[in-house]
Amino acid sequence: MKIAIVGSGALGLYYGALLQRGGHEVHFLLRSDYDAIMSNGLTVHSVNGDFYVPSVSGHKTSDTIGVVDLVVVGLKTFANNYMQNLIQPLIAADTQILTLQNGLGNEELLADLFGPERVLGGVAFLCSNRGEPGHVHHLGAGRIIIGGYQQFDTMRLKRIASVFSSSGVECTTTDDLKKTRWEKLVWNIPFNGLCALLQQTVDQLLMAPGCRKLVRDLMIEVITAANAQNLNEAISENYADRMLEFTDGMGVYKPSMQVDREEGRELETQAIFRIPLEYGRQQMVSMPRTEMLVVLLEQGKSILPT
Amino acid sequence: MKIAIVGSGALGLYYGALLQRGGHEVHFLLRSDYDAIMSNGLTVHSVNGDFYVPSVSGHKTSDTIGVVDLVVVGLKTFANNYMQNLIQPLIAADTQILTLQNGLGNEELLADLFGPERVLGGVAFLCSNRGEPGHVHHLGAGRIIIGGYQQFDTMRLKRIASVFSSSGVECTTTDDLKKTRWEKLVWNIPFNGLCALLQQTVDQLLMAPGCRKLVRDLMIEVITAANAQNLNEAISENYADRMLEFTDGMGVYKPSMQVDREEGRELETQAIFRIPLEYGRQQMVSMPRTEMLVVLLEQGKSILPT
Repeated sequence: MKIAIVGSGALGLYYGALLQRGGHEVHFLLRSDYDAIMSNGLTVHSVNGDFYVPSVSGHKTSDTIGVVDLVVVGLKTFANNYMQNLIQPLIAADTQILTLQNGLGNEELLADLFGPERVLGGVAFLCSNRGEPGHVHHLGAGRIIIGGYQQFDTMRLKRIASVFSSSGVECTTTDDLKKTRWEKLVWNIPFNGLCALLQQTVDQLLMAPGCRKLVRDLMIEVITAANAQNLNEAISENYADRMLEFTDGMGVYKPSMQVDREEGRELETQAIFRIPLEYGRQQMVSMPRTEMLVVLLEQGKSILPT
Repeated sequence: MKIAIVGSGALGLYYGALLQRGGHEVHFLLRSDYDAIMSNGLTVHSVNGDFYVPSVSGHKTSDTIGVVDLVVVGLKTFANNYMQNLIQPLIAADTQILTLQNGLGNEELLADLFGPERVLGGVAFLCSNRGEPGHVHHLGAGRIIIGGYQQFDTMRLKRIASVFSSSGVECTTTDDLKKTRWEKLVWNIPFNGLCALLQQTVDQLLMAPGCRKLVRDLMIEVITAANAQNLNEAISENYADRMLEFTDGMGVYKPSMQVDREEGRELETQAIFRIPLEYGRQQMVSMPRTEMLVVLLEQGKSILPT
């Protein structure tokens, strides 16, 4: 299968490398890593065993990639206004688009731009960070759950899942992508937000009882808002406790938003906070802690440690 | 009147200097400023006009002060465990104790230690910071409201108020000290907390609409908790808007807790946050933002900018 990776950060590089190793024709749209990867290839330092991809098809624009079977979108959501230009040259009649981006609103945007019938979404439970140019660090997990944005042919969905699973990525399908998205937010809202705000890793938050309780209180707010969104099946409060235990197992981990803030980049506050808050508000669900957290993140913009 | 100032920070030095200028016999219990003040006196840089107190009665222990008519307590509340030793030598049968400290719990502690009948509390609406040793900066306001911890003879209360007002401090009395304390918290909780957390001045918080709304939401939480405490008269929601306007007039101001954090000192989280939260909890008032704020302040202890 011919696959384009749009947004080659830690997530795009990691899954792209696995897909290429799995035998697919993978093209990477690159920016900062272009020179390093074209000269020296791509190295994945993985808890499952390091590997090296010597020959990478890297591109500076989508035009040189041409049309593909599958576009995997890993862009930071604050760059979504570039989506149209980056993806348009890749689209033929049968091209499918899978966004693995954070938060809410990405499928909607892709559907508006390229038609809803070709849009899939997925959430990745992946701990990874970029290293030196041309290096990506896979620190743990990596499972993906994918689903159609709208009603989606089951066989087609399973075929795309098998592209990942045959490449060594655990990939399951869901018929309730909305629920899966919100479940991911149950993790992302507290951990991305608090780690970025306090510049502390997940284990530092969880070891302090007061802060662990705050994490759980935030999770319950997100679950309450999620369950007001007309999901096929409600998310239970136990899910919060399972996520706390799952995160205990991560050890010293910096979520992507913590890294973004540390490096002075923009934060994905719109997709991870503002759109979920708006969906909550529309259903009259009060999310005071979530709202306070994003206000503090936005307000703290000017006081980055330098 | 013979007066001892216990806790000669920005507040203690400022009011002590005014009382001495007003003709009272004032003794200051000093620590870090002792050498500077004994050599060079005390300089007040005030928006109402600078003045200089050349000869200050400074002490390193309360024993050399002896018994006094009035003890004015300006200690940081995290030093309250020193109160007994610091104040005991100053107490005679008729000595009165006025605490101008922040938050809740101070009158209770003084009453336990020295008897409730001699305890008064006051809140100071004062913008002041310490400068170099021996210098204090009065940046604005300065009004005091005082009241008895318990039922208190009105004439006696008015006499103490007149000690201040005849020395140039606007001082009024209240028969509902509890309400006055909570009204001060309506300011202290959002501004001390957020300014310390974000290391931003009050004007920086107020100029951002999202953060201004968060300040107001915190104020409403405090007002709701206050009104569950059996006050003589409820605090209206308008009080929040009046405090916002009052603070707009302060310009670039660092609340004391912001300065404490900046200088790596302990924070007054117990008196300003934890005790009010506990009083709220006892009346089943939920204060999610207030609780989140103190958790973030406590959690952030380890990540002070250095």
